[in-house]
Amino acid sequence: MSTPAAKRRKSSKDVPYHLVYFSGVPGRGEHVRLALEEAGASYTDTAHIKDGINEVLAQIDPKNKGDDISPPPFAPPILKHGDLTISQTPNILLYLGPKLGLVPKPGDADEDGLFIVNELALTALDGLSNEPHDCHHPIASSLYYEDQMEESLKKTKDFVSVRLPKFIGYFERVLQSKASGDGPWLYGGKLTYADLVLFQCLDGLKFMFPKAIKKMEDSGDYKDVFLLYDAVKERPNIKEYLTSDRRQKYGLGIYRYYEELDITE
Amino acid sequence: MSTPAAKRRKSSKDVPYHLVYFSGVPGRGEHVRLALEEAGASYTDTAHIKDGINEVLAQIDPKNKGDDISPPPFAPPILKHGDLTISQTPNILLYLGPKLGLVPKPGDADEDGLFIVNELALTALDGLSNEPHDCHHPIASSLYYEDQMEESLKKTKDFVSVRLPKFIGYFERVLQSKASGDGPWLYGGKLTYADLVLFQCLDGLKFMFPKAIKKMEDSGDYKDVFLLYDAVKERPNIKEYLTSDRRQKYGLGIYRYYEELDITE
Repeated sequence: MSTPAAKRRKSSKDVPYHLVYFSGVPGRGEHVRLALEEAGASYTDTAHIKDGINEVLAQIDPKNKGDDISPPPFAPPILKHGDLTISQTPNILLYLGPKLGLVPKPGDADEDGLFIVNELALTALDGLSNEPHDCHHPIASSLYYEDQMEESLKKTKDFVSVRLPKFIGYFERVLQSKASGDGPWLYGGKLTYADLVLFQCLDGLKFMFPKAIKKMEDSGDYKDVFLLYDAVKERPNIKEYLTSDRRQKYGLGIYRYYEELDITE
Repeated sequence: MSTPAAKRRKSSKDVPYHLVYFSGVPGRGEHVRLALEEAGASYTDTAHIKDGINEVLAQIDPKNKGDDISPPPFAPPILKHGDLTISQTPNILLYLGPKLGLVPKPGDADEDGLFIVNELALTALDGLSNEPHDCHHPIASSLYYEDQMEESLKKTKDFVSVRLPKFIGYFERVLQSKASGDGPWLYGGKLTYADLVLFQCLDGLKFMFPKAIKKMEDSGDYKDVFLLYDAVKERPNIKEYLTSDRRQKYGLGIYRYYEELDITE
């Protein structure tokens, strides 16, 4: 009998990864792209496929009932690999991480490092991606920013004065911990996908809150965080990617520039 | 040389799990407790240890620099197991899941099921734990509810009319997918920790928004979700736990009852 598991094992390892995500902004899909690009992995991306949006919409259609192996995804990004379909940014990174050499593998001497890297990625996404999104949509994702501007300003004041220093300060502390090892990386002296996630969050924040981030850089209190940012940006594959036309520009995504929200306190 | 990895491997598997979390409300720690309780695992819990709060506060103190193996945690819940210290609710569940038999293990025929279960747990926590929290704290976690009541009502109106049906409807769809297998569970015909997470979210929502949840139950549109809720509640270990004094009451945590927010649209 061909069980779903047997089917999955047969086909999922020898085909390119396929990312299903909107085009037009880096978005949450960018965390997946950076991991694939750093590793030089073979992948396809609906953001660069003609009518790719139709595949995104079909996946999140309430009529999608999934298949024998995978339930329907709640939202993009979605990764297809062989007959496996998975979603949730940190989950996709967890799947890709060991395959791309961006985190210790099960069976490695430091296999529990996977749980440190996952923890750091989750924390960065919570505080430096989800919370910035809520700065321009504190009341309802389904409403326009223009319908919640007053609340957005209140939320942003709290974010830049309380939450942002708390999260960036936390990562500074992680970088100073013994567990981070040598070099500019968050864990174990090696680049992991947590570093790529933190880089992308910082890059988005530099676009969204240039004044607040500049103030933090100038303070000198978060030197290691900004050194990590520079170190990721100088990775040869990342550097090439960032100047390629595969890298999309910020716009009306998670990280948005609104002059009235570009505040420092 | 005793490397951090070697130290970790030596000691971490034969000692009880130790949960570090606030006492007084179930909170995010409850997802960890339910997994441990369902599996009948041996564990200690700062919520039930005299002065346990001091251990929570020491862990999240900005002066905590972590140790050779683990960086400092950002926030509770925190799990200590041997010399490993990890945080982030879905990350702790991912660590415990294979050890407690609540998800396929690496090397199992259906090992990729881990990524489905993690995806479902992340989605439930996003939509049915983080978003309810934001209903009473849409502007700033650092302010009192009383300082953001107007915004809370706006956020809650969107939550109960748009987000709640979207998330609960999504899980209904997952339960109807072939990948869910037979029986009341979300994935593969077996209880996984994703079911426990969804149960706890529903239980909290029943406390926080009794009218909205009752309306959803009465509609008959989400039958499988509520059957899952009942099925988890009837698991012998869970049933015993819920009536024990280890189960804490809801209060001023994630799930709070405010009469003015107990609305249906």
